[in-house]
Amino acid sequence: MTRILYTLCGHDESRPFSPHAWKAVMALAHKGLDFTESPTPFTGIPGLEDGVSKTVPILRDGERVVADSFAIARYLEEVYPDRPSLFEGPGGEAMARFIEGWSQTQIHPAVTAISIKKIHDMLGEADRAYFRRTREALLGKTLEEMDTAAEAAIEAFPAKLQPLRHMLRFQPFMGGDGPLFADYILFGALQWLRVVTGSVPFLPDDPAADWFERMLDLHGGIGRSVTTA
Amino acid sequence: MTRILYTLCGHDESRPFSPHAWKAVMALAHKGLDFTESPTPFTGIPGLEDGVSKTVPILRDGERVVADSFAIARYLEEVYPDRPSLFEGPGGEAMARFIEGWSQTQIHPAVTAISIKKIHDMLGEADRAYFRRTREALLGKTLEEMDTAAEAAIEAFPAKLQPLRHMLRFQPFMGGDGPLFADYILFGALQWLRVVTGSVPFLPDDPAADWFERMLDLHGGIGRSVTTA
Repeated sequence: MTRILYTLCGHDESRPFSPHAWKAVMALAHKGLDFTESPTPFTGIPGLEDGVSKTVPILRDGERVVADSFAIARYLEEVYPDRPSLFEGPGGEAMARFIEGWSQTQIHPAVTAISIKKIHDMLGEADRAYFRRTREALLGKTLEEMDTAAEAAIEAFPAKLQPLRHMLRFQPFMGGDGPLFADYILFGALQWLRVVTGSVPFLPDDPAADWFERMLDLHGGIGRSVTTA
Repeated sequence: MTRILYTLCGHDESRPFSPHAWKAVMALAHKGLDFTESPTPFTGIPGLEDGVSKTVPILRDGERVVADSFAIARYLEEVYPDRPSLFEGPGGEAMARFIEGWSQTQIHPAVTAISIKKIHDMLGEADRAYFRRTREALLGKTLEEMDTAAEAAIEAFPAKLQPLRHMLRFQPFMGGDGPLFADYILFGALQWLRVVTGSVPFLPDDPAADWFERMLDLHGGIGRSVTTA
């Protein structure tokens, strides 16, 4: 059976960086499912799988095509119920939606502020023009203007992880004793920052950094294997 | 069987305001368990149940005494498994710990900034002295100095609920179709603010406000029944 995961890359295919695609990579690895990763530039996405989605990840699993990281996780949980669970019950699936909300509203804007110019710089030529046009229209500033806020965003970043640190006083993963899809949601955001900028700003002796190291070790070190900036 | 939940009150016993005690009230109601609430002033807590805990809630359930809101929820889930679940599986229990971390590190400091002087003012005489001494030592300012930040904290408050709003695009409760203990965690914090100050600052036409109204309606309107400031 053909199983392909379309992810996002710049001019270097070996450094896929989409946070949402990383969630899907980790979900497939969690389920122990083999797949071929197909890193795709921004401007290549509309041509994937008959234009099924404007964004990656997109999963082809035999005859089925599923877009959106959360939809992919739900699909995998439904179709491969005998593999390790991504949610450990309906409560875990529901609360993962809140954790997605936290990551996207609190962590993603911070990662964007830190890395937007660096993302641009790692893209191929066609993608650079697309990225500059769409992001500058969205945020009402030039990429260079946005980049002046990067240093302050780096300083402010460690405080964003306070909810995780509080939880880590009780358990090593959002999933409890082991990782679940909720962990992959936050991991995706921090891996995005790591791949693009080379590091994630943590506190000294930070339990959140220890969690991230545990995440990078998972599933044969699939996260750690990617070359960073 | 005697089931008593010790909660926290000021000079008016009909206005219990502890966020953690409200989590336990809602958890007991969720399980459909009858109980007698025993609102207690700060300075009365060390005398409860042989000084088992420095904080409320404390639950006496027949021969068993359990302190701490999360421990109470876990206890109820274990001892009353045939009643409606508070976690809907191990994933839901684990992720509720993250949601607790979010609420305590992001929402509780904001509620404290808005309401600390008003909390003081609703206490009895002995509690006022205790509260002023401990809080001023903890925060390094007088209550009156802290209160000057209240207006700015009110303005900043609605933005704190962005993760909830994102989630509400997909489902009506953190628990999914219905509330779970995770919802009671955030409810406790907002109910604390509501009981002490009379209202919660929301946006106009705020889906987060709609969620809070749904929470106030639950279990016979047990949250709404409390008189506010």
